[in-house]
This record gives sequence, structure tokens and C-alpha cells, in this order.
Amino acid sequence: MSNHDLMKSLSITSPSRIVLLVIDGLGGLPHPKSGKTELETARTPNLDKLASAGTCGLSDPVGPGITPGSGAGHLALFGYDPLAFNIGRGVLEAAGIDFDMQPGDIASRGNFCTVDRAGAITDRRAGRISSEKAAELCGLLDGITIDNVKVMVRPVKEHRCVVIFRGEGLSAELSDSDPQQTGIAPKAVAALNSQASGTARIANHFLDKAKVILAEHHPANMLLLRGFSKRPAWPLMQEIYKLTPCAIAAYPMYRGLARLVGMDVLHTGITVDDEFQTLLRNYEKYDFIFLHVKGADSAGEDGDFDRKVAVIEQVDSSITNLLHLQPDVIVVTGDHSTPAVLKAHSWHPVPFLLYSRYCRPVKIKKFGETECGSNGMGRIQAAQLMSLAMAHALKLNKFGA
Amino acid sequence: MSNHDLMKSLSITSPSRIVLLVIDGLGGLPHPKSGKTELETARTPNLDKLASAGTCGLSDPVGPGITPGSGAGHLALFGYDPLAFNIGRGVLEAAGIDFDMQPGDIASRGNFCTVDRAGAITDRRAGRISSEKAAELCGLLDGITIDNVKVMVRPVKEHRCVVIFRGEGLSAELSDSDPQQTGIAPKAVAALNSQASGTARIANHFLDKAKVILAEHHPANMLLLRGFSKRPAWPLMQEIYKLTPCAIAAYPMYRGLARLVGMDVLHTGITVDDEFQTLLRNYEKYDFIFLHVKGADSAGEDGDFDRKVAVIEQVDSSITNLLHLQPDVIVVTGDHSTPAVLKAHSWHPVPFLLYSRYCRPVKIKKFGETECGSNGMGRIQAAQLMSLAMAHALKLNKFGA
Repeated sequence: MSNHDLMKSLSITSPSRIVLLVIDGLGGLPHPKSGKTELETARTPNLDKLASAGTCGLSDPVGPGITPGSGAGHLALFGYDPLAFNIGRGVLEAAGIDFDMQPGDIASRGNFCTVDRAGAITDRRAGRISSEKAAELCGLLDGITIDNVKVMVRPVKEHRCVVIFRGEGLSAELSDSDPQQTGIAPKAVAALNSQASGTARIANHFLDKAKVILAEHHPANMLLLRGFSKRPAWPLMQEIYKLTPCAIAAYPMYRGLARLVGMDVLHTGITVDDEFQTLLRNYEKYDFIFLHVKGADSAGEDGDFDRKVAVIEQVDSSITNLLHLQPDVIVVTGDHSTPAVLKAHSWHPVPFLLYSRYCRPVKIKKFGETECGSNGMGRIQAAQLMSLAMAHALKLNKFGA
Repeated sequence: MSNHDLMKSLSITSPSRIVLLVIDGLGGLPHPKSGKTELETARTPNLDKLASAGTCGLSDPVGPGITPGSGAGHLALFGYDPLAFNIGRGVLEAAGIDFDMQPGDIASRGNFCTVDRAGAITDRRAGRISSEKAAELCGLLDGITIDNVKVMVRPVKEHRCVVIFRGEGLSAELSDSDPQQTGIAPKAVAALNSQASGTARIANHFLDKAKVILAEHHPANMLLLRGFSKRPAWPLMQEIYKLTPCAIAAYPMYRGLARLVGMDVLHTGITVDDEFQTLLRNYEKYDFIFLHVKGADSAGEDGDFDRKVAVIEQVDSSITNLLHLQPDVIVVTGDHSTPAVLKAHSWHPVPFLLYSRYCRPVKIKKFGETECGSNGMGRIQAAQLMSLAMAHALKLNKFGA
């Protein structure tokens, strides 16, 4: 029996509330000087108190040694096995801008980029052009039709856009044109099986046209595509857990992901404080609230140890308002690790705390990787955290006779 | 390769002996005043000595967050994945009273109950009528035949009975008539697929007749059925582990479960001391002995923290006789947690100790949830305990070239 089937058969609706607070890229590695990670360095009296009154542990988003993308990391936290529920980047971006994908549509993530006169990529993000400029360029490319396939091009943020192909018999089994490196030319889109050859031809034809249209718009004089994908038909959190879930996230991709699993995506300001205010305003309406804080991951990717520490401390301070509401279950964790010393997502397991009145006590003084590893729940699969949250909220019936 | 196939290919018969001591519902939660669980509160010098000379850990009967029924919890301890070997309550009860189920028979668990004049249930257990009264009522219902289907009704204990339907082409894909709550009428038995509609009709016809027959027997004036099921064809412990296993259990359901996996079920008295005496008398005849102590679970379900502590202390005292016999492997654990503060089974992982002369040493002073979580083997699936017991008894060959 799959874990989803198990949850479907056991879950019940009740008045108790679960708050899932995701500090993106929370897990870290020690600073070379102090020997402490970002989380261990941060002053987090509120999180420490929650962890010692509740329990804690480490989770693997995908598996030992596997570095997750943001989509995979979050799906695991929502209780979806990321190996079974693999999502294309194109679909994720389309969902993030509220684009209404139809069955059969193929979406891809686009980057406006800079190519030199020989056609080699010199900047994969076209100097991070403004969102306004990108919107103008999307307008030039939007609506092109090739062999009865309509190509829609919509801006996301800065150099990012979504390209959707709509027509009969399209396949998403396509390779990326984005080589994810500079110094070489964009690749031709290749069909990964014979059914996809027509779609590959159309995608390449579109990219040829885009090159001509963008030629005069240096530094954004070319377009890269990756993550061709169709909208998946996934079970929703309402069906699996019988929850009424909502999401509070400032960044489009996370909003899109939340929508794909059935969450109401709330209108919110972008600062951590804005997000917590949104939570407080909507607290009564939902029994599952996902709140996403992006800043820790961005700081980690920039290699900025101190900024990541500061974001974590800001969360610790903002959480006080939530604590007054006394949610039945609070989970605080990350979707993956982003150690500042690596300047990238990593495979290291992610610290979590789970607070409820029904936790076995742990001897923990500081919410951090080392203590989470040796105390509390030990090491679990991230996709099991939802089962644990549901159990501690007394929202699961007994299994078996 | 399934774990059973692995065990079948590696297991060997040897003179070494394994004792599996199950303290039902052993795992707990802290007492609000002391901060210690039932097991941590109990004075258990013998168990503490076994744990520190052996090893310990925590186990998940089904998985993180999943609260197991008693059948599921025990199957895991016998090395049967409870998600793959799901057992119906009817079969379990029938096996517990030694009823000889035939292939094709459908068994269900029955409760004599009280209904008011409007037909709504006022007591699901009919005031826990005496076993004698229940036996008399079973006699009135036993042997009814409906459309060539013979219905057999046998008493279990107090208000509990088993109802077996015997005939051609019956299906167990039926919903319960027992709504598991009071204030509403019993439900009609519904067919869960089209093949089961004939059986549903017969079950409802039987319940109609039972209502008429029982009408004059207030408080036991109606019957509730649940857990319709057929006897499963499971591999036996003899085949999987090449063991000669026996069970010492006072309660019918556990005796039934043991019989389903191939154990000899020994005649025993019902106190903990009786059960240990039965063990001593039969020790030479078996190389796997399962001893079941019910009292800790009952106390937990009653919310009686102190009584649960007392049962655990009694086991600790009774175990001294066993220790003189020096079994090669002793496992002491529970089939699930039943914290007194929850008054119910729970999802919390279950402490275990495994004693053998071949354990890696652990730093443990007290057999309890906290120390089991941070020392020894860490957290494992309960269904892996049998593999560990077999290994420590030197009853498993090497795997692979």
C-alpha cells in the first residue's frame, strides 16, 4: 500500500491545526572559523524552546547523498515521494504565474540570455534584465504559431519566462536547449523518443524565430529553454489528508508548487514579517498552513553565511506571533540544505523540529544539525514528516485490526 | 527480494533459543508531573541489566506517524510486513477461539449491543454482558441458514462473538454494520464491489433475523458486525525461519494471531506469573517462544499510568526465572505504544531491548524510551526485529558470494 493510500484510508478531519514553516535551504555546514553551522550560529531562543518542548531530528528529502531541487524538496515535505512525483520545471514555472495549463500543453522554463557573435552563450541570465524589459520581449515572442501549434511566452521575474506550446499530439519528451554553462552555443532541442520528434522540430523552429526577433535586444539577444513538461494529474492534499490547506509564499515557483497539490495560495507581502502577518490574518480559515521563507536559501547560494544567519534569526523573531495562537502542531524545517560554504543546494540531511503536546521529550538545548542528529526522532525520510504531523494533530485513525 | 524470501534462503535450524517477550502497549508518554514515561518510571533492574548487557533501540510497527492495531503490531514483531499482511478482525477473532475456518468461509467480529426503541445504539457492548449470557444468545443465533449459507455464531468473551458465513461464492468485500459510535442506528452491510452484493444481502438478512430473536434480551437486544474477512494463506514461521515456535498468551486474539503464523499455542493460566510458569514448563520443546503480557495495554487504554507501571514491574520481577535458563536471545518490546495520557494506542515508536552474547555494547542505565532513542541500534522497522533475533541466535547463513 502506498503512503498516500494509507493516509487516504486513515486521515480524518478535526479542528486541530498544523503549521509547516519551511526555511528554504535551512541545513548548512560549519563555518571554517567557528565550527558551527548557520543554524547553530543563529540566536534562536524561540525555535530552541519549541524543539525542547517538542521533538527534533534530521530528514532526507530524497535519499542519502541526493541533492534535491526546490520542487523535489518541497514535494517531500508535503508527503509526496519525490522519486514518484517528479515535476518538470516548465510546469512549475507556469503554475507559479497562475498560467492556466490545459491537458496536452507543454511548458518549459525560459531564460533570456546573451550570446556573442559566434553564437556562444556569454551570460545565461542576460545580466538579469529588468522584469519590465523581459515583459516587453515576451510580448514580441508571444502568439507565434508553427504548424497549428500556438506558442505562448509569459514573463516570470527578471530574465525568467515560461514558454507554453499548445496544439494536438505534442510530447514533453524533449531535451533542454539550455546547456547550463557559458562558452558554448545553445543546444538544439532533441526528441527523447520517436513520438516527440515533431514537437522537437517545432521547438527548434520557435527558437530560430526567437533568435531573429531578439537579435537587436542585446544583452537579451537569445532564449534558452529547459524542463519541457506536461501538467501532472496528482492527488491533492484535500484527498490524501482531508485537510483545508493554504500556502503563504512570496516566490512564484513555490506558489505554483503549492497550487499543484491543492493549496489555496494566499496573497501576501514579500518580507518574512509580511508573510507571518498573512498567516495571522488567515489562521482561522485553514487547518494546514504552509509558510515559505526564501531568504536563507538565496543567502546560502550567494555564499553569505552571515546573511543566512540573519534570515534565520528574523524567522525566530517573527514566529512569536504565531506561538500566541498555539497551533496544535508546528513543524519547522527546510526543503534541503544550502550550506554557504558550498554556495549551492546540497545532499546533507535537513534539521527539523516538530512541536505538539504529544511529543516524547528530547534533551536539546539548541535547534541545530548536531543536536537534531543525536536526539529526538533520529533520521527519517522527509516525506514521512506529513504523517508525523498528522499523527501529532490526532488526525489519523488506527491502522489494521 | 522480499525479507521473507531472504529469511527462507538464509535461515538454518540450530539448538539456540529465542524468547520474544511482548509487553502489549509498552511505549508511553511522560507523566505530566515527573516527565517520565511509564517504562521510565517503573523499577526494572532486570530489564535494565539485560539492555545494558545487550542492546536497545526504538522500532516503528508500521511507519512514522502510523498508529497500529494489535494485529498489525504483532505481525510486524513476527517479521511480517503489516502493510502486506493485513488481517481482518473477523479472522483474527475466529482463530482466537480455535474455530476451524474453511477456505471460502467469511468471518466477522460481532458485538452484542443495546439499541433504543427508535433503533439507535445506546451501548456498543450491551453493558459488557457476562460470557455465560453471551453464550446463551449465540446459541439462539447459531445455525441459521439463509439461501444455502450456514451462519455460525460463537461466543468469545463478554459481549464479543464471532459470526461465520459458510457457503458457495461468498465475498468478504463488505462494509461493517458497526458504526463504532452510539446515538445512531446500525448501518446496513454494503457490498464493496459487485461480486459481494449477494453476500451483503445474506448478512443483512441474518441481522434482520437476529434483531427479532434478540428483541426480548435487553440490554443485549441487537448485534453489530465488523471486519468481514477470509482466512489468509500466509507463509508460516516454520517455513520462513525453520523455527519450532510456540505462543504463550492468555487473550484469544493473540492466540489466534500466533496460530495463523504457525505457532503452537500453549495452554496457560492468565496471570503474568502463570505465563512465565508455562514458559518454564515448555522451554525445552521449542526454539522460539512468544510470551504475551496484555495488562500494560489495558492499563494504558484506561489511562491508568500507575497500573501500567505496576504491570511492567511485575514482568521485570517474573523474568528472573527465565534468566536462569540463559536463552541465547531475549527480545523485550511492545507491539505498539499505549500512553496512559492518550488512553489509546499511539504512533510513537516502541522501545526494545535485544539481549545476546553477541551484541555491541551500549551505554544504557535504564530501559526506557529516551535512552533507547539515543543509544544502541537507533530506530528500525519492527518487522526487522526477527531478522536481528535470528542473527543474534546464529541462525542465519551469510548472504551472497
